[in-house]
Amino acid sequence: MYELGVVYRNIQRTDPAVSDALAKFGSATVHEAMGRVGLLKPYMRPIYAGAQVSGTAVTVLLHPGDNWMMHVAAEQIRPGDIVVAAVTAECTDGYFGDLLATSFQARGARALIIDAGCRDVKTLTEMGFPVWSKAISSKGTIKATVGSVNIPVVCAGQYVTPGDVIVADDDGVVCVPRALAAQTLEAAAAREANEGEKRAKLASGVLGLDMYKMREPLEKAGLRYID
Amino acid sequence: MYELGVVYRNIQRTDPAVSDALAKFGSATVHEAMGRVGLLKPYMRPIYAGAQVSGTAVTVLLHPGDNWMMHVAAEQIRPGDIVVAAVTAECTDGYFGDLLATSFQARGARALIIDAGCRDVKTLTEMGFPVWSKAISSKGTIKATVGSVNIPVVCAGQYVTPGDVIVADDDGVVCVPRALAAQTLEAAAAREANEGEKRAKLASGVLGLDMYKMREPLEKAGLRYID
Amino acid sequence: MYELGVVYRNIQRTDPAVSDALAKFGSATVHEAMGRVGLLKPYMRPIYAGAQVSGTAVTVLLHPGDNWMMHVAAEQIRPGDIVVAAVTAECTDGYFGDLLATSFQARGARALIIDAGCRDVKTLTEMGFPVWSKAISSKGTIKATVGSVNIPVVCAGQYVTPGDVIVADDDGVVCVPRALAAQTLEAAAAREANEGEKRAKLASGVLGLDMYKMREPLEKAGLRYID
Amino acid sequence: MYELGVVYRNIQRTDPAVSDALAKFGSATVHEAMGRVGLLKPYMRPIYAGAQVSGTAVTVLLHPGDNWMMHVAAEQIRPGDIVVAAVTAECTDGYFGDLLATSFQARGARALIIDAGCRDVKTLTEMGFPVWSKAISSKGTIKATVGSVNIPVVCAGQYVTPGDVIVADDDGVVCVPRALAAQTLEAAAAREANEGEKRAKLASGVLGLDMYKMREPLEKAGLRYID
Amino acid sequence: MYELGVVYRNIQRTDPAVSDALAKFGSATVHEAMGRVGLLKPYMRPIYAGAQVSGTAVTVLLHPGDNWMMHVAAEQIRPGDIVVAAVTAECTDGYFGDLLATSFQARGARALIIDAGCRDVKTLTEMGFPVWSKAISSKGTIKATVGSVNIPVVCAGQYVTPGDVIVADDDGVVCVPRALAAQTLEAAAAREANEGEKRAKLASGVLGLDMYKMREPLEKAGLRYID
Amino acid sequence: MYELGVVYRNIQRTDPAVSDALAKFGSATVHEAMGRVGLLKPYMRPIYAGAQVSGTAVTVLLHPGDNWMMHVAAEQIRPGDIVVAAVTAECTDGYFGDLLATSFQARGARALIIDAGCRDVKTLTEMGFPVWSKAISSKGTIKATVGSVNIPVVCAGQYVTPGDVIVADDDGVVCVPRALAAQTLEAAAAREANEGEKRAKLASGVLGLDMYKMREPLEKAGLRYID
Repeated sequence: MYELGVVYRNIQRTDPAVSDALAKFGSATVHEAMGRVGLLKPYMRPIYAGAQVSGTAVTVLLHPGDNWMMHVAAEQIRPGDIVVAAVTAECTDGYFGDLLATSFQARGARALIIDAGCRDVKTLTEMGFPVWSKAISSKGTIKATVGSVNIPVVCAGQYVTPGDVIVADDDGVVCVPRALAAQTLEAAAAREANEGEKRAKLASGVLGLDMYKMREPLEKAGLRYID
Repeated sequence: MYELGVVYRNIQRTDPAVSDALAKFGSATVHEAMGRVGLLKPYMRPIYAGAQVSGTAVTVLLHPGDNWMMHVAAEQIRPGDIVVAAVTAECTDGYFGDLLATSFQARGARALIIDAGCRDVKTLTEMGFPVWSKAISSKGTIKATVGSVNIPVVCAGQYVTPGDVIVADDDGVVCVPRALAAQTLEAAAAREANEGEKRAKLASGVLGLDMYKMREPLEKAGLRYID
Repeated sequence: MYELGVVYRNIQRTDPAVSDALAKFGSATVHEAMGRVGLLKPYMRPIYAGAQVSGTAVTVLLHPGDNWMMHVAAEQIRPGDIVVAAVTAECTDGYFGDLLATSFQARGARALIIDAGCRDVKTLTEMGFPVWSKAISSKGTIKATVGSVNIPVVCAGQYVTPGDVIVADDDGVVCVPRALAAQTLEAAAAREANEGEKRAKLASGVLGLDMYKMREPLEKAGLRYID
Repeated sequence: MYELGVVYRNIQRTDPAVSDALAKFGSATVHEAMGRVGLLKPYMRPIYAGAQVSGTAVTVLLHPGDNWMMHVAAEQIRPGDIVVAAVTAECTDGYFGDLLATSFQARGARALIIDAGCRDVKTLTEMGFPVWSKAISSKGTIKATVGSVNIPVVCAGQYVTPGDVIVADDDGVVCVPRALAAQTLEAAAAREANEGEKRAKLASGVLGLDMYKMREPLEKAGLRYID
Repeated sequence: MYELGVVYRNIQRTDPAVSDALAKFGSATVHEAMGRVGLLKPYMRPIYAGAQVSGTAVTVLLHPGDNWMMHVAAEQIRPGDIVVAAVTAECTDGYFGDLLATSFQARGARALIIDAGCRDVKTLTEMGFPVWSKAISSKGTIKATVGSVNIPVVCAGQYVTPGDVIVADDDGVVCVPRALAAQTLEAAAAREANEGEKRAKLASGVLGLDMYKMREPLEKAGLRYID
Repeated sequence: MYELGVVYRNIQRTDPAVSDALAKFGSATVHEAMGRVGLLKPYMRPIYAGAQVSGTAVTVLLHPGDNWMMHVAAEQIRPGDIVVAAVTAECTDGYFGDLLATSFQARGARALIIDAGCRDVKTLTEMGFPVWSKAISSKGTIKATVGSVNIPVVCAGQYVTPGDVIVADDDGVVCVPRALAAQTLEAAAAREANEGEKRAKLASGVLGLDMYKMREPLEKAGLRYID
């Protein structure tokens, strides 16, 4: 349940060295590095292909059809942040367009993650301001009811606390809790260390069956080959 | 409820000067200019990114899995028209492909809006004939049952009368009734007049909170800041 | 109902001359050539636009959240194959990423059709390895339970037998049974033979109503024109 | 596109003799009698089984999450009416509960058809006030923005004009335009006249194939029997 | 891919002693007894609660919006059969109502499983003729195109061969292939044999943790208790 | 993000006097009393009509297709609890049937809230053990991977902390945080205090327009009446 009508100005952001370093691993590797948790629902899609970012979460809780709090959130943005927007009920309205994007970008935000709709996607693409959203919709919103900024929110099924790290790319969006960010970075780096070697082997025709030594466990699990 | 088996040959199209001028504002601005009504449901998506058009509606009512009336509609197209296709029941079949697009384009149509499926999307993209649809599907259709052309239809939840203006881009599709088109154009132009100035201010770091003078109403609405 | 825990090593592939020749006609024409059957549900979408392939099906049955059998399937791939993956229950997890794609590509696979999720889509796009899937998701999978390879499967509502031809492009995915592949190729070629002429006529402004001689049957079906 | 902020007090209701008589035929027969048009989308479901009603439409246009106009609509209800509620955007909130139902029932309304959510369904069931809705939800609504009453609306994909007849039962909801109500009643009665005889024949084991003389047309259509 | 325009008159039905005996175990136990395969997608819901049946499948392939083949199927029904209806594309129309139900019931059919819509549900409930369907809809269908009867079909994601056993109840619908029916019956009976004892233990307060000896494997799997 | 592999044995339950007293107000009134927050998504539906309960949350985090932790959760149940089950990814499998219900009921649980599927619904109905779930499915689950018990979870979009109060009825499911339970109870009681009087007025024909003094604000908001 949400605390309404509050803006927390002081949040504990993850160390930027850690937050920034997670981007290059991408959401899939980071998700694995956390033990396969932290993923937002896969209906969250980027408005254009190719963006890959990480940053610290500034959260905002919105009401259906009302984007007033987006302007309140803008003031809380610091360079390196990613805004994470949740709504108190299902809504596909276009809460965010080129003017807000201009403001967010000027404040140093790297992206928006919104469990609702977005618009002006052509201009946002030209600006290079990536958004991951549930919908694209021309439908505008009003400014009538207060929500909150920087409270913990549930966004696309995932609990996000202000200051957590968000990693987003073409594969989806992952939330890394602040307390786990450093160890997740380490695990992601370890995971990727030997990927090059594996890729080379597989490219040369070596089978995963042999590289990962799966033949024996598969046989034990009862797999039979029939000619 | 629909009148079946009729083709209205004489429809009152919106003044082309007005209809043509609406394209550049885009669906989001036009939707705002009408007071936030007129939008087709956001499941209507363009088959390729970047197209932005406006034009006068020629409507067609189809039966599920039957595209016969598309050929009847083709004859009613005049340069500057956009065909708006509704179906009497939910259907995702590919009613429209490159041959029909060639015919529509030859007649002067600018786009198709269809509450069903479309196919040959690669060729349509190469031809530069944009389609906004509910689905993309290889499934073809038969030619067995008559529907109607140029009757009012409900397309993706929106009531469209022949001759209304359709505005479509990456953000979605809006219908502007003929009687409101001139005033909507004016309102859209007024709306956009000072957008450049606003954008410049926001880009310089001015907050929407200050530019729109929101701080006082937010406080009155009970918003509290916590350090 | 599925036979679990088996890998059929010898399957009867469609003649490669036929299988390879179907790609250029695309899924819409092939679907028509078969009498409008064989299409996988239209929720199956390519991870990038523009790919157009055909190949012989190697099938794999997976369990939800478990991609172990993908490695088993890799060994059964021969050049010219397309892997068709079904799951025993609805799942959107990302079963397939760049490492498996490297392995599949090294074995000669042309594409993956999966009734579940896929990840690493940016890298797959760079590699030029096309995937048609139900979802894109960072969520990884485990390797714990055996399924089967090269048994008949239901993939996205379509029954696919190993060795059938798969034709996939931006419009969707079609399965052509081995026994019908040669006649389908012939029918597709016949269908396309006079498309150029039709397109030229329609481009010159001739109406489908006249080209297809539809005016009389439409009148018989009761269509009325109102001025 | 909707006219906002208006209440039409004088609407032309269908003759009550006709409107009342349609209930007993049910939505399926009435839908057939109109030539298979007029049906609201099948996601509209009754909150309890067994209700079967007809009545004249009083329409109301609501905003998402705002039920203010329901109170305005209540005043326009006359005995024999059915309220038809549309929303300007997708919403599943519970706009209607036992207090409004008490008011509607006191005014003589027979049912509510709402393209959104409903709540207090246990009490509504006890009261015998049927509702056909898209959702059931505890979520309440605010009273902040004006919509309209007795304008034509699109409800669940169907265009409904005030005064039209609504027929609703366990199978769904049909809208019969006022101008067609008398002839639809006649057609429905004719349709049902010989149903008893047909049912008796089928119950005795006579096949539809013989009763409807389908064997010859099926053979002509190419149907083959294989032993 | 489907063979169109054929009716197979002689199908190999599962032994009625086996087919009839499966009903009492219900779909959940039968699904477990088969190794957790064979289930139709869970969107298939009964039109009324409480029915629990089994019977041999007579299959029918329909076209969208066309129920002609239902009459052809009626003739192939024998006492103890359950009709399984698939459609060549997604459709929610009401293919089946009280007249067809009267005919099916007169021929000895026990139920209908249809991957589309059904209507007249109130009358069907009174008749005690159960239907499991994807939708309930008043929308009627035409009789224009031939499909097939008694070919293998994909219904709600499951491959069903004529003569297989269908088991359906409030939990869903399972298909048991003819070749596996006898052993499945045995496995289901074995499974249920000791359920009474288990239920008594659990009802007395014994925990599944102890009854199934799960404490040790849970500890090995790393489960930690925190006070 | 979830802590995996842990069971918290000591949770702070809401005072039972408060938890028990909330049931009679129902989910809609409680949701209003909290300021319109706390509702689980409306896809959560009861398996049978008429149940109305409240109780303290014991939470369990499950993996897709794996119900092992349900047995671990059973041990943590105390009389007056309601089990709230979340899954780490979307799943509709039938995690819960009559045996587990027998165990839960023996331990004193009042209901299950599960963001997945349930089975044996006929027996559960006979037992009077209510379940609110996303799906009903025969599909069984395995016991292979550990999740957690009594950690905070996101269930159907709502954050639930162990010991919170759950209120569920035919309208849906609401979560009341422990810290707010007493004041919510008070607010709900106050809200309902004058409902009887209101209902009597509305039943006598008084309009909400007058009872709530809405005419003036509606006029100020621009509402116009047209005769």
